[in-house]
Amino acid sequence: MLAEFDVIREFFTPPAGDGVALGVGDDATLLSPGPGNQLVVSVDTSVVDVHFPADAPAWAVGHRALAVALSDLAAMGARSRWCLMALALDQYHWQDAADSRAWMQAFSEGFLELCSGSDTSLVGGDITVGRLAISVTVMGEVASGLALTRHGARAGDIIAVTGALGGGAGGLRLWQQGERDLEHPLLKRYLLPTPRLAAGQALTGLASAAVDISDGLLADLGHLRRASGVGAELEAEAIPLAEGLQDAMGLADARQAALSGGDDYELLVCIPPDHWRDAYAALARLGISLTAIGRCVDTPGVSGVMSDSQTGWQHFVGETP
Amino acid sequence: MLAEFDVIREFFTPPAGDGVALGVGDDATLLSPGPGNQLVVSVDTSVVDVHFPADAPAWAVGHRALAVALSDLAAMGARSRWCLMALALDQYHWQDAADSRAWMQAFSEGFLELCSGSDTSLVGGDITVGRLAISVTVMGEVASGLALTRHGARAGDIIAVTGALGGGAGGLRLWQQGERDLEHPLLKRYLLPTPRLAAGQALTGLASAAVDISDGLLADLGHLRRASGVGAELEAEAIPLAEGLQDAMGLADARQAALSGGDDYELLVCIPPDHWRDAYAALARLGISLTAIGRCVDTPGVSGVMSDSQTGWQHFVGETP
Repeated sequence: MLAEFDVIREFFTPPAGDGVALGVGDDATLLSPGPGNQLVVSVDTSVVDVHFPADAPAWAVGHRALAVALSDLAAMGARSRWCLMALALDQYHWQDAADSRAWMQAFSEGFLELCSGSDTSLVGGDITVGRLAISVTVMGEVASGLALTRHGARAGDIIAVTGALGGGAGGLRLWQQGERDLEHPLLKRYLLPTPRLAAGQALTGLASAAVDISDGLLADLGHLRRASGVGAELEAEAIPLAEGLQDAMGLADARQAALSGGDDYELLVCIPPDHWRDAYAALARLGISLTAIGRCVDTPGVSGVMSDSQTGWQHFVGETP
Repeated sequence: MLAEFDVIREFFTPPAGDGVALGVGDDATLLSPGPGNQLVVSVDTSVVDVHFPADAPAWAVGHRALAVALSDLAAMGARSRWCLMALALDQYHWQDAADSRAWMQAFSEGFLELCSGSDTSLVGGDITVGRLAISVTVMGEVASGLALTRHGARAGDIIAVTGALGGGAGGLRLWQQGERDLEHPLLKRYLLPTPRLAAGQALTGLASAAVDISDGLLADLGHLRRASGVGAELEAEAIPLAEGLQDAMGLADARQAALSGGDDYELLVCIPPDHWRDAYAALARLGISLTAIGRCVDTPGVSGVMSDSQTGWQHFVGETP
């Protein structure tokens, strides 16, 4: 049995980071946010067999748990600063066996490597016994008034996505079929998503609204539409499909995965036409594609996409579930 | 099955609070910390059958999960501002049955009542399926440089505690023996602890170090001693015992519960002698007792208390486990 303090000391005591006046090891952590900024906070929990497979590599579990939380900061256009991690470990991982220690080592490496890669300092956390789950609270900053929200879209704005979609669902299906090569582009998309922090920050002042695609394009577009009070006309053929997706599941299923699959952690953004060139160029400088997939309209609902239960194209008006 | 969005909308959408520019409902929350302050953050997870009994009243579970997290802010002398809650619900509580709805209603009331009572705005969270557990991230503020830490104690400082000890362990034992009257003072102490936020704030500028008593007086004193590099001479008879504790378990067990029981969520503080009168008076104005129980000394370790495994008093020098 590993004691909580031992686990924290051995695996999770990174050097104190920028803006950390007092790091891990007291009752709480002292942080110094920058003047003139707003604080951006979110929490995201990843549960074994719900959000990731029980046999996923430990470092991928660590990376992914932080990545999905950081994706929310990306959608706000925030710079990531700090995180806290509440880890529930089941008996298997908690036992003081060599494989358990190896699991913790790899898990912490995956988590801390992404901390380092995203300028995020781990500043607190706790460890309890329970079904394996990781709750990550992320804290970022954005210049006051510049945060991207879900409610700024207006009719006429261009709807666009970063990167490509469907890889999360495609990767999950491959994993379930037994594929274990983490170099496979779809498995990478599913297990090792990259939070679009740089893209989100580059789009502040240019995008009118943003959301990250965690529930699926249509579902997350629904959140954005309701918050902004707009409808959407999509061009289904324009939606960029993840590398290898069409090969793995055929065009029809690939398109469905891109529309409803979830777990892509790309950004869905609305861009006023006047800002399109600047937005496109800003992401191109980061090596990130920005693809227009439709427009915001006054009419509520979504048009231009095939509903899941239909065989042909149809317009459906109303709320996505 | 209650959907996550429904649960959040129905039970957990409090009015936006002070300093909340954008509350629950976007990818993340926007907060505006006060200028000149440091941010104080901590996370604490409460797991069913580990930190609270499965049959504990739901509103007590909600209260307690927040209270134990706020206790860490109290130990830093911080004012509480915001919290996020990651809730894992097991199948029983997650089913759309009338008793499940009643459980969520009572749980959220217990949580939100303490939010209100501690000026804490719930600004984010998520809900997943899993063994019942609540991870609460709390965020507070303290004037820069004034936070109470564990490392400021010096030889000669008076060691003191707020309130009385042993009630957490005593209440747990009563609960295990079948007592269910929440008006019983020991059950109150165990299930409905009061975070000492006002006491912590009143002691900033007066106390040299502080820690909250969650692991037990000796264990938490050990954290403080190691961080400050001091030893402690305790007067065991001076340690205030929780109301009803001696009646419930006899003097010897009551003292042991006060020394090692944990779950008391009182503050253990070190006060330079010059500040003692002011500290005592400041807490008296709040109706909170402050009891001197010993002194910091240069010699490492603890003296003056009975070790658990011994029948007589002894001095033991070294580290508590």
